[in-house]
Amino acid sequence: MFTTLSFYSIFSVAVVLLAFGYAAYLYFWVKNRPSENKRIERISDLIKQGANTFMRQEYKQLAKFAAVTGAIIFIFLPEPVWSGGIVNNVIMLLSYWAGTCFSALSGKIGIAVATTANKKAAEGAKKGLKEAFLVGFRGGSVMGLAVVGLCLFGVVLVYVITGGNSTILLGFSFGASSLALFAKAGGGIFTKTADISADLVGKVEYGIPEDDPRNPAVIADNVGDNVGDVAGMGADLFDSNVASMVSAIVIGATLDGGKNIAANVGMVFCYAALGLLSSVIGILTARIGKHGSPTKALNMSTYVTTAIFLVLTAAATALIKGFRWEIWGASAVGLLVGVIIGIATDYFTDDTKPIVKNVARASRSGSAFTILSGVSYGFISALPAMIGIGVSALIAYKICDPVGEGYAMFGISMAAVGMLSIVGMIISNDAYGPIVDNARGLAEMGDLGDDVVEITDELDSAGNTVKAITKGFAIAAAGLTVISLLGAYMSEVNDAAQAMGLGTVLSGFDLMDPNVFFGMIIGAAIPAVFSAMLMLGVDRNAQRMVEEIHRQFREILGLKDGAEGVDPEYDKCIDIAAHGALKELIPAGLVAIIATLAVGFIGGVNAIGGFLMGNIVSGLLLSFFMSNSGGLWDNAKKYVEAGNEGGKGSETHKAAVTGDTVGDPFKDTAGPSINTQITVVSLVASLMSTLFLLYHLL
Amino acid sequence: MFTTLSFYSIFSVAVVLLAFGYAAYLYFWVKNRPSENKRIERISDLIKQGANTFMRQEYKQLAKFAAVTGAIIFIFLPEPVWSGGIVNNVIMLLSYWAGTCFSALSGKIGIAVATTANKKAAEGAKKGLKEAFLVGFRGGSVMGLAVVGLCLFGVVLVYVITGGNSTILLGFSFGASSLALFAKAGGGIFTKTADISADLVGKVEYGIPEDDPRNPAVIADNVGDNVGDVAGMGADLFDSNVASMVSAIVIGATLDGGKNIAANVGMVFCYAALGLLSSVIGILTARIGKHGSPTKALNMSTYVTTAIFLVLTAAATALIKGFRWEIWGASAVGLLVGVIIGIATDYFTDDTKPIVKNVARASRSGSAFTILSGVSYGFISALPAMIGIGVSALIAYKICDPVGEGYAMFGISMAAVGMLSIVGMIISNDAYGPIVDNARGLAEMGDLGDDVVEITDELDSAGNTVKAITKGFAIAAAGLTVISLLGAYMSEVNDAAQAMGLGTVLSGFDLMDPNVFFGMIIGAAIPAVFSAMLMLGVDRNAQRMVEEIHRQFREILGLKDGAEGVDPEYDKCIDIAAHGALKELIPAGLVAIIATLAVGFIGGVNAIGGFLMGNIVSGLLLSFFMSNSGGLWDNAKKYVEAGNEGGKGSETHKAAVTGDTVGDPFKDTAGPSINTQITVVSLVASLMSTLFLLYHLL
Repeated sequence: MFTTLSFYSIFSVAVVLLAFGYAAYLYFWVKNRPSENKRIERISDLIKQGANTFMRQEYKQLAKFAAVTGAIIFIFLPEPVWSGGIVNNVIMLLSYWAGTCFSALSGKIGIAVATTANKKAAEGAKKGLKEAFLVGFRGGSVMGLAVVGLCLFGVVLVYVITGGNSTILLGFSFGASSLALFAKAGGGIFTKTADISADLVGKVEYGIPEDDPRNPAVIADNVGDNVGDVAGMGADLFDSNVASMVSAIVIGATLDGGKNIAANVGMVFCYAALGLLSSVIGILTARIGKHGSPTKALNMSTYVTTAIFLVLTAAATALIKGFRWEIWGASAVGLLVGVIIGIATDYFTDDTKPIVKNVARASRSGSAFTILSGVSYGFISALPAMIGIGVSALIAYKICDPVGEGYAMFGISMAAVGMLSIVGMIISNDAYGPIVDNARGLAEMGDLGDDVVEITDELDSAGNTVKAITKGFAIAAAGLTVISLLGAYMSEVNDAAQAMGLGTVLSGFDLMDPNVFFGMIIGAAIPAVFSAMLMLGVDRNAQRMVEEIHRQFREILGLKDGAEGVDPEYDKCIDIAAHGALKELIPAGLVAIIATLAVGFIGGVNAIGGFLMGNIVSGLLLSFFMSNSGGLWDNAKKYVEAGNEGGKGSETHKAAVTGDTVGDPFKDTAGPSINTQITVVSLVASLMSTLFLLYHLL
Repeated sequence: MFTTLSFYSIFSVAVVLLAFGYAAYLYFWVKNRPSENKRIERISDLIKQGANTFMRQEYKQLAKFAAVTGAIIFIFLPEPVWSGGIVNNVIMLLSYWAGTCFSALSGKIGIAVATTANKKAAEGAKKGLKEAFLVGFRGGSVMGLAVVGLCLFGVVLVYVITGGNSTILLGFSFGASSLALFAKAGGGIFTKTADISADLVGKVEYGIPEDDPRNPAVIADNVGDNVGDVAGMGADLFDSNVASMVSAIVIGATLDGGKNIAANVGMVFCYAALGLLSSVIGILTARIGKHGSPTKALNMSTYVTTAIFLVLTAAATALIKGFRWEIWGASAVGLLVGVIIGIATDYFTDDTKPIVKNVARASRSGSAFTILSGVSYGFISALPAMIGIGVSALIAYKICDPVGEGYAMFGISMAAVGMLSIVGMIISNDAYGPIVDNARGLAEMGDLGDDVVEITDELDSAGNTVKAITKGFAIAAAGLTVISLLGAYMSEVNDAAQAMGLGTVLSGFDLMDPNVFFGMIIGAAIPAVFSAMLMLGVDRNAQRMVEEIHRQFREILGLKDGAEGVDPEYDKCIDIAAHGALKELIPAGLVAIIATLAVGFIGGVNAIGGFLMGNIVSGLLLSFFMSNSGGLWDNAKKYVEAGNEGGKGSETHKAAVTGDTVGDPFKDTAGPSINTQITVVSLVASLMSTLFLLYHLL
C-alpha cells in the first residue's frame, strides 16, 4: 500500500513544502515592511500579547481536555484495550494528539502573522490602498497556506506511518475537531464578549468612538478579531478539510473490496495537493490597481483559483490511469456549488443589494422590525444554500453511482473534497478581514489621520463582504463533509460488525425505524441548544466584562477624560474574556457529546444514523440562518452609518445598532460554531461505533 | 364493514350529539347572562362585526382556493379521471369540500360565542372573579365541543358513507387543512398586524393606553384576538385532530390484510368519542372558588379530563373484544407526553419561573439582550419537547410492534390520537384566553372601574399562561400526527403501486438514498421560509395599517384629544388587516405546496419521504422555538410591568416591549402556523402519491 501510494504521498509532500516555502517568503515580506509609529507599535504589541494570552489559556484547557479524551481513546479505541491490541490504541491516541497539535500549530502561525500584519497594513495605508491591501492579503495568505499545508501533511503522514489505517485517521480528524471546538466556539465567545462590552460601555454609554484607546476593552476587542476570525476560522476550516479528506479515504479504501485503493486514495491526495497548488498560484496572481476595488481583487483570486483547480485536476484525471472522470465531475460539482452558495450568501448580506436595504428601511419603525426582518431574511437565505447542498449531493451521487457499488457515497465525499480544495484561498481572504480590521483600529489609535483611516475603512469593508461569502462557503463545505462522514460512519460500523462476525449490519438508515426517528429528532434539537448555550455564554461573559470596564472608569483617575499617561488596564479585560470564553464553552461542547453518547447507548447504531442526519440538517439550517442574518444586520448598520435612512445618530441608526448587537453572536459565535459541533459529533459517532454496536439498551 | 363498525359509529354520533346538546346549553347560558352597559354593547358589536368581516373575506378567498384545488382533485384524485372512475373523483371532491365546510362551521360557532362571551364576561366581572371566569370558560367550551364534535362527526360520516374508503378520508383531512392554513396563518397575520400597529402608534408614539377607544386600530386588535386565537387555533386543532384520526384509520384498516379492520378502526372511533366524553365531564366539573386561581382551575380541568380519558379507555379496552392493551398503552403514552410537554413549555414561559426573570434581567442591558436571551432560551426550550415526541414515538412503536406487522406504526398514530383525545378541553382553555382578553379591553373601554379591570386582568393573565401550554401541546400533537401521516403516506404509495402491479415499492426511506437526502434538506428549509414569509407579511401589513392610523389621527379632528362624539373609523383598519392578511398568506402557502410538488416530480416517492421528515423535524424545532420565545418575551414584559427590574416606563421596560413586539409574530403568526404547513404538505404528498409514482424525473 505504501509503495502504490508513494507517488501521491511524495507529490503531496512536495506541494506542501512548496507552499510552506512560499508562506515563509510571504511572512518575511510582511514582517520586513517598514513600521515606525511608536504608538502603533505599542498597541500592536498589546494585541499580540493579548492574543497569545488567550491562545495559551485555550491550549492549556485543550491540553486537559485532550488528556482526558486521550485516556478514553486509549482505553476504548479503536477497540477496548482488553479485546484489541494495546499498540493500536497507542497509535490512535498519538494520531488524535497529532490532530490537535497540527491544527494548534497552524493557529499559532496565523496569530503570529496576523498580529504583525495588522500594524504593517496600518502603516502601509500611508502609502496608499495598493500597499495596504497587499500587506493584509499576504498576511492572510500565510495563514491560508499554513492551514492547508499542515492539514495535507498531517493526513499524509498518519496515513503513510500507519500503513493506510483509515480508522486511525479518524482519530487525527477528531483531534482537529477538538481543537476547532475550542478555537472556534471559544474564540467566538471571546471576540463577541469583547466587542459587545466595548460597544455597550464605550459607544452607547460614554459616547466615545470605536477603537478609542481610553476604552479598557478596546485591546480585547482587537484581540478578539484575531482569535475569533483568524485562529477560529482557520481551525474550523482545518477541521472540515481534514474531515473531508479522511471520510473520502475511509470510503474510498473499502471500494471494490479494496482493489482500487491506490487510485481512490491517490485521487484524494492528488486533488488536495492540486488544490493547494492552485491556491499558491491564486495568491501569486492576486493584484489590485491603485484605485481598484479590494472586494473585486479578493473575489477574482477565488475565481482564478477555482479555474486553475478544475484545469489541473482535469489534466491529472486525463493522464493518470485509474483516475475516473466521474469522480472528477463530482468534485467539480462540489466546488462550483460552493462558489454559487457563496454568491447567494453575498446577495443576502451585501449592502448594495436590496435585502440589506430592506432591513435598514424596516429599522425606521424601531428595533423590533430590524430584528423581525433580519430573522425573516436570514431564514429565507438558508433555502438556496440548502438546495445547493442537496443538489450537489444528488448530482455527485448520480454521476458516480454507475462506477460501482459504494462509489456514489465516494462521489459525495469527493464533492466535499472538491469544495474544500480552494480552502487555502478562502482562508487567505478570510484572515485578510481581521488584519485590516485591526489595521483600521491601529490607524485610528495611532492618529494616522483621516485619509489613512479612510483607506483602512475601505479595506475593512471589503473584508466584511468577503467574510460573509467565505462563511457561507465554510458552512456548505462542512455540510457536504458531514454527509460523507455519515457514509464513513456506516463503513466503520460495518467493518466493526464484520470483525465481530455479525456481517453487514447497516445498509442504510430507515426513517420509519423508530430508533432512527428518535435519534433524528434529538439530533435536530442539539445545534439549537448548543448555539443557545454559546450565546448565553457571551451574554454572561459580557456582563462580567461590562462590570470591569465600569470599575476601571470609576477607579482609574483621569481615564475618562483621556489624561496624558493614563492607560486603562487592558489585560484585565483580556483575562475576563479569555477565562469566561473557555468556561462557557465547555458545557456546550459536553451537551453535544453527551447527547451523542446517550442516543448511541440507548438506540444503538441506527439511532446514531438518525441523530447525525437530524443534526446535520437542522445544524445547516440554523448555521446559515444565524450567519447570514448576523451579516446582514452588520451591513444594514453600516449602510445606515453611510448616511442612509437618517444616518448616524438617528433613531433608525439606534435600531440598526441593536440588530448588529444581536447579530454579533449570531454570526461570529453561534452560527459558524455549529459546523464544528456537527463535525465533532460525527467523529465521536464514528469512533464509538464499535461500542454502540456492543452496548445499547434497545 | 358498515355493519361491523356500526356500533362504534353510532356510539360516536351519540357522544357527538350529547356534546352538541351540552354546547348549545352552554351557549344559551352565556348568551342569557345579563349585560346592560350600552358602550360595551356597542364596542362588542363592533368587534363582532369586524370578526365577521374577516371571516367572510377569509371564507371567500378560501372558496376560490377550494374551487381551484377542487378542480385539480376532480381531475387527478384519487386517480386521474381518465384512468379511474369519475364517481370516485366526485366523492373525493365532496369529501374535500366537506372537510373545509365542517371546519369553517366550527370557526363560525367559535366566533359567534366568543364575541358574545367577551361582553358577558366583562359585565360578569362586576359580580366577581367567579362569575367572570365561568362565563369565559363556558364560552370557550362551546368552541371546544363544537370543534371536536364536528370533527368526529365529519370523519364518521365520510367513513360510513364511503363504506370505509380511507383514501377519500384523506380528502376530508386535506379540506380541514386548507381551511386551517387560511384561518391560522391568515388569522395570525391579521391579529399581529392589528396588535403591532395599535401598540406602535398608540402606546409608543402617542402614549395613549392599551385598549383606548381613540385608537383606530383598537377594535381590529380585539377582532384579531378572536380570529387569530379562537378561529385560528380551533381550525389548527380541528386539522390535527382529523389528521390524527384519518392516519390512524388509513394505517389500521390495512393491518393483518384488513382482517381486524373492525377492531382497529373501531378503536379509533371509540377512543375519539371517549375523549370527547371526557372533555364534556371535564368541562362540567370545572369550578373556581371566590378567591381561587383561574390558572389552577384551568389546569385542573385538563388533568381531570386526562384521568377520565385514561380510565374510560381502559374500561373499553378491557370490555371490548379485539381492543388491545398495547394500543391503549400507546395512546396513554401519547397523552401523558403531551401533558408533560405542556408543563415543560410552562416552565419556559411562566413569569414565576426563572427563565422569564432571566430575560427580564437581561433587558436591563438593552433590547439586544432581551432578544439574544429570548432566542437562546427559545432554542433550549425545544429540546424537552423534541425528546418527548421522540420518546413517545419510540415507546408507542416498541409497545405495539410485537402485536403484528404494521402495528408499530399504528401505535404511533394511536399515540397521536391519544394526545389529541383531550383536545376539546385544550380548545376550551385556549378560547377562554381571547374571551377574557377582550373582556379586559371592554371593561377598560366601558369605564367599569379599576376593580373590574383588575379582575379581568387576573383572568387574562391566566389565559396567557394556559395559552403557552396549549400551544406546546398543539405543536406536539401535530408532530406525532404528521409522523403517523408519513406512515399513512407510505401505505398510500404501496396501495397505489400494488394497484399498478408494481408490488410494494416502499418499505422505508433510507437516509443514505440521495433522493431521500435531497428531499430532506429541502423539506427542512421550507418551514423557515414559510414562517419568514408570514412574518414579512405582518411587517408589510403593519406598515400599511400604521399609515392609516396616522391618517386618521391627522384628518379626524378632535380624535387625538378624545373629543365627545368623535370616533375613529375602526372598519378601515379592520379592512386593511383582513385584506392584507389574506394577500400575504397566499404566497407562503404556495411556496410550501409548490416545493412539495417540485420535490415529488423530481425525486419521486422516496424524495417525498425525506422531504416530509425534514419538514417535520425542522418544523417542530422552529415551531417550539418561536412559540416559546414569543411567550416568554410576552411574560417578561408583563413581569417588568408588574414593577420588577425598574417597572413601567423604565429603559428595561422599553427593551422588554421590543422583545414582545418581536415575539408577537413569532408566537401568534409564524410559530403555530408551521403545524398547519406541515400537515398541508403531508396531505398533499399523500394525495399526490400516485402521480409522483407515475411521473418523476429521477
